Amino acid sequence: MANFKGHALPGSFFLVFGLWWSVKYPLKYFNNRMKGKCRNNMAYRRLELIEGVMKVVFTFIGILAEQFVPDGPHMHLVQDHSWVKLMNWQHSTMYFFYGLSGIIDILTYFPLNVPQGLDRLSLALAVFIEGLLFYFHVQNRPPLDQHIHSLLLIAVFGGSISIMIEVFLKDHIVLEMFRSSLAILQGSWFWQIAFVLYPLGGAPEWDQTDHENIMFITMCFCWHYAVSLIIIAINYMLVYWCMRRNKDLAADVTIGIRKLNPNKREEAQAALLAASDEE
Amino acid sequence: MANFKGHALPGSFFLVFGLWWSVKYPLKYFNNRMKGKCRNNMAYRRLELIEGVMKVVFTFIGILAEQFVPDGPHMHLVQDHSWVKLMNWQHSTMYFFYGLSGIIDILTYFPLNVPQGLDRLSLALAVFIEGLLFYFHVQNRPPLDQHIHSLLLIAVFGGSISIMIEVFLKDHIVLEMFRSSLAILQGSWFWQIAFVLYPLGGAPEWDQTDHENIMFITMCFCWHYAVSLIIIAINYMLVYWCMRRNKDLAADVTIGIRKLNPNKREEAQAALLAASDEE
Amino acid sequence: MANFKGHALPGSFFLVFGLWWSVKYPLKYFNNRMKGKCRNNMAYRRLELIEGVMKVVFTFIGILAEQFVPDGPHMHLVQDHSWVKLMNWQHSTMYFFYGLSGIIDILTYFPLNVPQGLDRLSLALAVFIEGLLFYFHVQNRPPLDQHIHSLLLIAVFGGSISIMIEVFLKDHIVLEMFRSSLAILQGSWFWQIAFVLYPLGGAPEWDQTDHENIMFITMCFCWHYAVSLIIIAINYMLVYWCMRRNKDLAADVTIGIRKLNPNKREEAQAALLAASDEE
Amino acid sequence: MANFKGHALPGSFFLVFGLWWSVKYPLKYFNNRMKGKCRNNMAYRRLELIEGVMKVVFTFIGILAEQFVPDGPHMHLVQDHSWVKLMNWQHSTMYFFYGLSGIIDILTYFPLNVPQGLDRLSLALAVFIEGLLFYFHVQNRPPLDQHIHSLLLIAVFGGSISIMIEVFLKDHIVLEMFRSSLAILQGSWFWQIAFVLYPLGGAPEWDQTDHENIMFITMCFCWHYAVSLIIIAINYMLVYWCMRRNKDLAADVTIGIRKLNPNKREEAQAALLAASDEE
Repeated sequence: MANFKGHALPGSFFLVFGLWWSVKYPLKYFNNRMKGKCRNNMAYRRLELIEGVMKVVFTFIGILAEQFVPDGPHMHLVQDHSWVKLMNWQHSTMYFFYGLSGIIDILTYFPLNVPQGLDRLSLALAVFIEGLLFYFHVQNRPPLDQHIHSLLLIAVFGGSISIMIEVFLKDHIVLEMFRSSLAILQGSWFWQIAFVLYPLGGAPEWDQTDHENIMFITMCFCWHYAVSLIIIAINYMLVYWCMRRNKDLAADVTIGIRKLNPNKREEAQAALLAASDEE
Repeated sequence: MANFKGHALPGSFFLVFGLWWSVKYPLKYFNNRMKGKCRNNMAYRRLELIEGVMKVVFTFIGILAEQFVPDGPHMHLVQDHSWVKLMNWQHSTMYFFYGLSGIIDILTYFPLNVPQGLDRLSLALAVFIEGLLFYFHVQNRPPLDQHIHSLLLIAVFGGSISIMIEVFLKDHIVLEMFRSSLAILQGSWFWQIAFVLYPLGGAPEWDQTDHENIMFITMCFCWHYAVSLIIIAINYMLVYWCMRRNKDLAADVTIGIRKLNPNKREEAQAALLAASDEE
Repeated sequence: MANFKGHALPGSFFLVFGLWWSVKYPLKYFNNRMKGKCRNNMAYRRLELIEGVMKVVFTFIGILAEQFVPDGPHMHLVQDHSWVKLMNWQHSTMYFFYGLSGIIDILTYFPLNVPQGLDRLSLALAVFIEGLLFYFHVQNRPPLDQHIHSLLLIAVFGGSISIMIEVFLKDHIVLEMFRSSLAILQGSWFWQIAFVLYPLGGAPEWDQTDHENIMFITMCFCWHYAVSLIIIAINYMLVYWCMRRNKDLAADVTIGIRKLNPNKREEAQAALLAASDEE
Repeated sequence: MANFKGHALPGSFFLVFGLWWSVKYPLKYFNNRMKGKCRNNMAYRRLELIEGVMKVVFTFIGILAEQFVPDGPHMHLVQDHSWVKLMNWQHSTMYFFYGLSGIIDILTYFPLNVPQGLDRLSLALAVFIEGLLFYFHVQNRPPLDQHIHSLLLIAVFGGSISIMIEVFLKDHIVLEMFRSSLAILQGSWFWQIAFVLYPLGGAPEWDQTDHENIMFITMCFCWHYAVSLIIIAINYMLVYWCMRRNKDLAADVTIGIRKLNPNKREEAQAALLAASDEE
């Protein structure tokens, strides 16, 4: 769907996942640091099951939308010896791989002995396939159109590489936050593409060959990422303060502080050492 | 052999290896998890010897086929001051490096102290050399021909990098399954190239400059990979169920479940912890 | 600011940071080796707080300079339906990301449980954004201008990758010294760009299309790096000798030598082994 | 020196180092496996000192040759407002970085606390600088000349990446053998370039624009690498058999076999396990 909605729909999916991850991972991280690893594992595993189901549902909606919009291919691939609506078929393919990744997420939940890391590998592959299709997708288009999509590719391939590293480094909070930030970036950038290429309600068209516009769009991409990083930071802080207040109420304050503030412990140790030195 | 058979032959080799790996690695993985590491090592080492011998035999067949087909170079490199059938020589070179990798596999079996990882390094190099030759091979060809071969390069270089990582991370099931999936993809893609560039029995020729065809081929490549992933998944499941049934028959059920379902153990532990908390 | 000062200002910032790092990291390294890890941690943490504050101050100066120089955009982005001074806005964006990295450095100091490695990730992102903007920045310029900026990109992306690796390998002295050397290289190269593109006081202009000039500039870039490496080596040696003299004065000579010269210990062990063998 | 000797000289340097490494590293590897790590360390450290001195001597010869050949720049960089013999200056720069790497090797030997890995980082940088200069060096040349040099770049950048990994993985025999093979490849390829671009004694010139020649050269590069791998394998085997014979003479046969043949031990263990199972 080369129109506003066709970009807004996947953009919204990525935004939802990015924002959700930016809350989930800090939550998991603080939980692990406070209560040890094994306790809340089950809850998080269930969350990931739900995530998998959501992925499958979202991608199913996406595929249906691409196939059965009025000007869609309606599951026909060839007609009169020519291809039918290849663009929609390509988008369906992208959704399909995200769906596969969702299915692996679901299978990982059940005691089927799915190897650790396969869920992240399948996600990395889905992201890579998206990038691959986009890469060959935008050739023979006006410069601004090409440029705005190739900026998207930076977020896409960056995300794919980062998730690939997560196959080997599980539960690495920095990688998880990086992934969240790239998902939000992708989501908001899809919306930006929609606004630039298919201006809403009579807004003036962008000149697709103007070099100034291309320069602005590059910078605009960086601003999107800056906003994405700030959102990640705010969510992280919110989670931190919620967790802290909850813990304080739960009265096990002393133990908590010891675990929460390794810095203070170091300070104390340093002071102790200094004191013992002076003696 | 720039014809149907010249692509179908290597395609079949890759398919055979990819399918075989997609059974072997899950088998090895479950065996290790169930019975500990040392027990079945010898059997797997023997399998790898056989694999090495197969590689040498296959590549020998490949080289002979490239050299001694009726229009082959028959081991002549220069004739009347010009090169003879360089295409066939290049293919022979590709086979040769896979042969070298097979020889290293064989040497690894014998107690010669071949360093761990050398077998995978030599395989990675063989794959890389294949990619390198293909890369310079397809210049000056029609767009569709170039594009269909450059998609192959994604599978080739992806495989090479993945095997290179296996040099450092031995017996990593996710990497091994990834490698299997790329081998199947390569195999089936060689067949696809054969069908597109050398249509069998009077099928219509593809228009090699049509942009729509190029877009379809890109998507088709993704579908091949999707099928490859599904084959991998099915083989994995089959192995899992076979292993499980065998084990159940062998009556050591309780121990087995404990080892097979770490998830259930976690559940039990969580329940235990919850109970002890409530007290 | 596409003039001499606009390149000299960031160049000076990078030089200051590069030189400072080339002293700080050896200092930290020797301290850790001599006294164990925990002792001076607090001091180094405070240094990093100061570093973060410096980054924020420097980038604030940079942004103000870019915005409010006489021919700057004065915070206006759009005027009469066209973009205002996008070059200055791009430079402001680069400074902004370094500022973000500074803020993360400051937050890392306080007991807020900021995950380890986030400070380096944010620095790597700032460097990457700088490279991204430069990459699209220099299109449609004369060959020498393009070339001199694309050499800068080698230092920029090299630095970004190296810092990205530091996210996973903390306190790796070789990586830290590599980063310092690239920062010095970037700083001195900014000055070189300033001298080449905006010759001072009546110096003759460079012919921007001469192939010989491009060849010289490539080599000149290598010389800059050689000088950068030599500066790093000298600073390392100076730190080493200062630390050693201080330690000698502190009278714990015997313990020191044992810790400082693992080589001598190996020699002694080897001699011991040889002796026990001969018996 | 854009002539036969100017390529044969560095080619010989690389060949000497590659061949030497292909003997040194297996020797060190077997020694470590047989006698434990600490014993022969001193001997190997001394070898590396000698290697460093050799590097410095070789690069000094190289720089002198480039500068003071009859048509060299004789240390003049600018004359009559134009650059003097930039080609020779670029080659001198390449040698200089290898010299720097040699100096670090020498410093590493002495008890100066040079961080582990710095010697390999400096070597990786020297190789990278060589690649960088070559990359910009060959623009505006006939196709065959460009192609033959860009194949060299594969060996160069491959080597640089591999040595960069060695910074983190010390004494990894597979990486060391890979590096040796790339050094031999680079050496023999320099000789090949010399023979192709500057044919000796009246041999016919190569047609530098013929596509067939370019195809042959690509394949020829692979053959060089195959020969390089075979040389590595032979040297490895020779070292293995020499070490084995020496050890057998030294009468500690039983212990030796135990250490040398972990495979046999596994077989024995497997047999033992099987036996205990049957009871």
